[in-house]
Amino acid sequence: MNKLKVGIIGATGYVGIELLRLLLTHSEVEVAAISSSSFEKMKITDVYPNLLGYTSLICESVDEVIAKSELLFLALPHGLSEEIADTALAQGKKVVDLGADFRLEDESEYEKWYGKKFLNGSLHEKSVYGLCEVNRELIKASPIIANPGCFPTSIALALIPLLKNKLIKKDMIIIDSKSGVTGAGRGLSLTSHYAESNENISPYKVGGVHRHIPEIEQSLSKAFGEEIRVVFTPHLIPVNRGILSTIYCELSEATNYDKVYETLVEAYNNEQFVNILPKGQIASIKSVTLSNNCQISVHFDERANKLILCSVIDNMIKGAAGQAIQNMNIMMGYPENKGLEFLAPAF
Amino acid sequence: MNKLKVGIIGATGYVGIELLRLLLTHSEVEVAAISSSSFEKMKITDVYPNLLGYTSLICESVDEVIAKSELLFLALPHGLSEEIADTALAQGKKVVDLGADFRLEDESEYEKWYGKKFLNGSLHEKSVYGLCEVNRELIKASPIIANPGCFPTSIALALIPLLKNKLIKKDMIIIDSKSGVTGAGRGLSLTSHYAESNENISPYKVGGVHRHIPEIEQSLSKAFGEEIRVVFTPHLIPVNRGILSTIYCELSEATNYDKVYETLVEAYNNEQFVNILPKGQIASIKSVTLSNNCQISVHFDERANKLILCSVIDNMIKGAAGQAIQNMNIMMGYPENKGLEFLAPAF
Amino acid sequence: MNKLKVGIIGATGYVGIELLRLLLTHSEVEVAAISSSSFEKMKITDVYPNLLGYTSLICESVDEVIAKSELLFLALPHGLSEEIADTALAQGKKVVDLGADFRLEDESEYEKWYGKKFLNGSLHEKSVYGLCEVNRELIKASPIIANPGCFPTSIALALIPLLKNKLIKKDMIIIDSKSGVTGAGRGLSLTSHYAESNENISPYKVGGVHRHIPEIEQSLSKAFGEEIRVVFTPHLIPVNRGILSTIYCELSEATNYDKVYETLVEAYNNEQFVNILPKGQIASIKSVTLSNNCQISVHFDERANKLILCSVIDNMIKGAAGQAIQNMNIMMGYPENKGLEFLAPAF
Amino acid sequence: MNKLKVGIIGATGYVGIELLRLLLTHSEVEVAAISSSSFEKMKITDVYPNLLGYTSLICESVDEVIAKSELLFLALPHGLSEEIADTALAQGKKVVDLGADFRLEDESEYEKWYGKKFLNGSLHEKSVYGLCEVNRELIKASPIIANPGCFPTSIALALIPLLKNKLIKKDMIIIDSKSGVTGAGRGLSLTSHYAESNENISPYKVGGVHRHIPEIEQSLSKAFGEEIRVVFTPHLIPVNRGILSTIYCELSEATNYDKVYETLVEAYNNEQFVNILPKGQIASIKSVTLSNNCQISVHFDERANKLILCSVIDNMIKGAAGQAIQNMNIMMGYPENKGLEFLAPAF
Repeated sequence: MNKLKVGIIGATGYVGIELLRLLLTHSEVEVAAISSSSFEKMKITDVYPNLLGYTSLICESVDEVIAKSELLFLALPHGLSEEIADTALAQGKKVVDLGADFRLEDESEYEKWYGKKFLNGSLHEKSVYGLCEVNRELIKASPIIANPGCFPTSIALALIPLLKNKLIKKDMIIIDSKSGVTGAGRGLSLTSHYAESNENISPYKVGGVHRHIPEIEQSLSKAFGEEIRVVFTPHLIPVNRGILSTIYCELSEATNYDKVYETLVEAYNNEQFVNILPKGQIASIKSVTLSNNCQISVHFDERANKLILCSVIDNMIKGAAGQAIQNMNIMMGYPENKGLEFLAPAF
Repeated sequence: MNKLKVGIIGATGYVGIELLRLLLTHSEVEVAAISSSSFEKMKITDVYPNLLGYTSLICESVDEVIAKSELLFLALPHGLSEEIADTALAQGKKVVDLGADFRLEDESEYEKWYGKKFLNGSLHEKSVYGLCEVNRELIKASPIIANPGCFPTSIALALIPLLKNKLIKKDMIIIDSKSGVTGAGRGLSLTSHYAESNENISPYKVGGVHRHIPEIEQSLSKAFGEEIRVVFTPHLIPVNRGILSTIYCELSEATNYDKVYETLVEAYNNEQFVNILPKGQIASIKSVTLSNNCQISVHFDERANKLILCSVIDNMIKGAAGQAIQNMNIMMGYPENKGLEFLAPAF
Repeated sequence: MNKLKVGIIGATGYVGIELLRLLLTHSEVEVAAISSSSFEKMKITDVYPNLLGYTSLICESVDEVIAKSELLFLALPHGLSEEIADTALAQGKKVVDLGADFRLEDESEYEKWYGKKFLNGSLHEKSVYGLCEVNRELIKASPIIANPGCFPTSIALALIPLLKNKLIKKDMIIIDSKSGVTGAGRGLSLTSHYAESNENISPYKVGGVHRHIPEIEQSLSKAFGEEIRVVFTPHLIPVNRGILSTIYCELSEATNYDKVYETLVEAYNNEQFVNILPKGQIASIKSVTLSNNCQISVHFDERANKLILCSVIDNMIKGAAGQAIQNMNIMMGYPENKGLEFLAPAF
Repeated sequence: MNKLKVGIIGATGYVGIELLRLLLTHSEVEVAAISSSSFEKMKITDVYPNLLGYTSLICESVDEVIAKSELLFLALPHGLSEEIADTALAQGKKVVDLGADFRLEDESEYEKWYGKKFLNGSLHEKSVYGLCEVNRELIKASPIIANPGCFPTSIALALIPLLKNKLIKKDMIIIDSKSGVTGAGRGLSLTSHYAESNENISPYKVGGVHRHIPEIEQSLSKAFGEEIRVVFTPHLIPVNRGILSTIYCELSEATNYDKVYETLVEAYNNEQFVNILPKGQIASIKSVTLSNNCQISVHFDERANKLILCSVIDNMIKGAAGQAIQNMNIMMGYPENKGLEFLAPAF
């Protein structure tokens, strides 16, 4: 059987190398080519010795990668994907974009948060937001997938079933998220400097200014049917991987904790990658690290009458490379867990 | 000049050894004796080699320590301090209790959360809640100080000035706290087992069940003049020391962000150990670790109309041993920063 | 095709759960049963929520596991495997023992280091030391495999080719090894208590007293043909996984660095799991973590005329569960990398 | 009493800010001025918020700092100190240089390892190598102190008494050192990038190429009276602070372990900052972190006839800023522990 030829644009960033690592053991695909603006013409194993013995790929130009591939993963800083996607589609290739370029449907929102307009509106009409468990049918039919952001994935999976069923109020959603340091990528910065992050925890972009906010609100508003605004505070924690979103909300009048719990269990009953923890257990990132899983625990504070959801994913897998591969599997009709069989280590 | 003879009951727990370490360099006191139920008759340097060359103290019995000391620090598990305090007071000694025995004024609350009644009500009438910056005058006159809990310290310092001035609403206070692992003490448990905590973050006691809740609410209610209920979720993060409380609340009708900011600045203008960060800066635990400082940053989310406070302390210093020494300094009329001069390392 | 029924005795220790995690995705086997003395009759996912949704196994008794399995993995503290292996063999089952019971061939050495005699000498004659790359042919034919220790694996793979070819002197081998904390297992101890290990590094069992020494010396002596004694100092480092052995030795008269390097390259030319790094690169544990790989870098100090080898493995995979599965694959004639395809993450 | 006016050149690097932090609580000195090439004219608390409320210093030019100070600490990259020291001495100021410019006495060695000649030979004649416990009398009389490197300090303190007394052989000294990440400074690099260092350990500059080697050999050769060459391998470990040097050597014919142990105990009997651990205990960095202490444990491997020394310091304190202050205290006749009273936390 012929394997699908895939390419990775931006293979030496953290998301790119994670994609390559996972795709090298995916039995349905062959990584045909990779590009890197920083390491062009270098062997990937000279940059990432963890792959030594498992690939002899050399970083090529973007054009070469497009030419050699049937499906492209774009792992680039925001704003660089649209043009490449345009070229790729023109050549009949499929695209999974791991940046933000195609995530927001509303051009004015995109302009407001990212400071630029859409390059080509018709391209955006062909794209779909690749939250696999929610948009599976649309993903099958689309040539461009906007792979969701890491924080939005952890949040949307927990809240969408509740909002769809109007089980929580729309005006009191407070999200306190914690992310591992790889979320900041491989680019050098004081924030990611070892001695600054280690033995530290720091909130950042406090006060409604993180670019994931419009993406989160787009998903939640769509599910609820009305515009929703959330409070969202990200924190940097001293771990390599993982996101925990602790979400505070209020129940609607006509419901209760058991109803909420059952709704979530039912919503993900047939989903391999989303697990609602048994009542009484509490989610922690260790249980999903390095896997494509999302685990969600559900709690109720009777004294204060608040619902608390704890949702965990690996920011680099379900929050980036893993979900991108899941999207490819859906697009191509492969078993959805192909290349994503790895289970989270206990430690 | 004669030095004050102080004793530490429970010197080999994490709080106890931190007290000893700090007191050994306090120029007004002499550590006269220490006790430990686990290591009686052992040299403390055989248990804690970091003190080698700086003390030759040997762990003695509780009675010996009481007899040799003028002021006692009790660093014991909850429920063991009342009886010892009773004995010590009868001998004319002063007491700083770092446990929870004297923190709650309402006996019924104490019974509800700790499962036992007060041993001796008159003892509780002599005690005062030792939140130094708030209760300084009462502390001067009291023979028993209930040293505040770590989470409550970080929270009360941020909220009390706002509640006193009715700048925030009482019904929407959500506190998402993150604590280093030393908060769980030296007792062995899977939670503190290296491979379980490392590369992990986990919420615990989710849903209004942590014993610090009545202590937090007691402080906040007193400041506001009405009963307050809060949502409080603690998280364990993989650092040794430090607490960050991210606090979400709503402004009262008649106020605004600038008023809130100025109120906090004024409240702590003359306080050495509490600093309100300049606008635009964000608090992180690294800036206070190993010091007795509390730093608070103040943020406003205009989109969602919420006030966000980030308050950081070292859980073992300002949240335990440091504040206990600050309380002793106030009780004895020493300069309040004696023994607490150490500045937080930048890394 | 029928899958091989395998069982894990001691499934809730760190090595046991790592075995289970890997075996659950091994396409040739079915985990038929698992045992745990601490958690008998409990669902494994209640102990290890990382496996939630991927198995419904319940911890059974040792006898049940033996009865249900064709091949058994024993992941027990030292001294408990011999009797179980005896029972299993009597029922015609195969055994991979991850403890030390079958590692030493010389009963007097075993008695000296472990304080007990062999239970049944004939059982030991049927066992083989499962260092896969070295004893592959013997492993195919043996019903009991003594899976090597973690430190010995990292050391033997680096030194055996050089000793076999007499390229280094036998009297000057100094090994400074560093291990992650999971090496100490799941049992609670102050050594593995988070606040004690974190931000620390500590040598332990210094001065020729670690039980891996006779195992190391047995492998090296056999390769060289004469008795060898080594200096071996293990250190505990604050990471979950990984071993780095920095090995200092002296070249034989008739050789040089290039010869040494080429000998190692040739020795592992056809081995998937052992890689000699290109000259100039330096091994680090990150490149092998979570994989079954061993990477070795080779250095020469001209000023001091010493050869330095840096050898890295994941202590839980190539140093335990991974090599055990590799051994099973060899015993059963499966492709040697089955269930071990996972590549080390770059971070 | 007038306080000594001190200045720090290079105050925003890791060593510089550590100096400032410690000097701010030194009762005999006033930090008159600080410089920083990267942050000139900025408030130091805007760069390092940990000092907020404790200083209002602003970064000035090098010339201003020299003019305002009586004693200067130079915390600069290698090669920048000589010229500044020249200027300072011409103005009658004293200098403690924390770089490498004055450490090597032999100009040809300096040229070989640092690629440049001495700027002004007469300046070097006025300088002394500031290993406090060894060169105390010379330090008192010298206007320029070459503050020792971090690795060399941990090694020289352990070996000098043994070499002076000819208790170990000169031809077999193997040093395996482990250092925290702050040793690499505040400059951004992939090596210090969080996700690369975390959960990793990596040897670097393997094979006799680290610039601390000539400094180490200079100290050891001087003590022994003959030229000594060592094997030295540094490793980066995932902690912020601390150095552990594990040192392997051979006893001279006429001695034994007890003699070695007693010699070390006697050598440091009256030294506050160097402690030889009781027999049977093993040094670990946690016991000295954040203090100016060096702890050394002494072990003998009877099987292999090797002596093993484990020597630990905090690389930023005894290995840099602390020893620099100790040097100043000696130069100025202050109690040697002024400003260095802080004891290592137990965790």
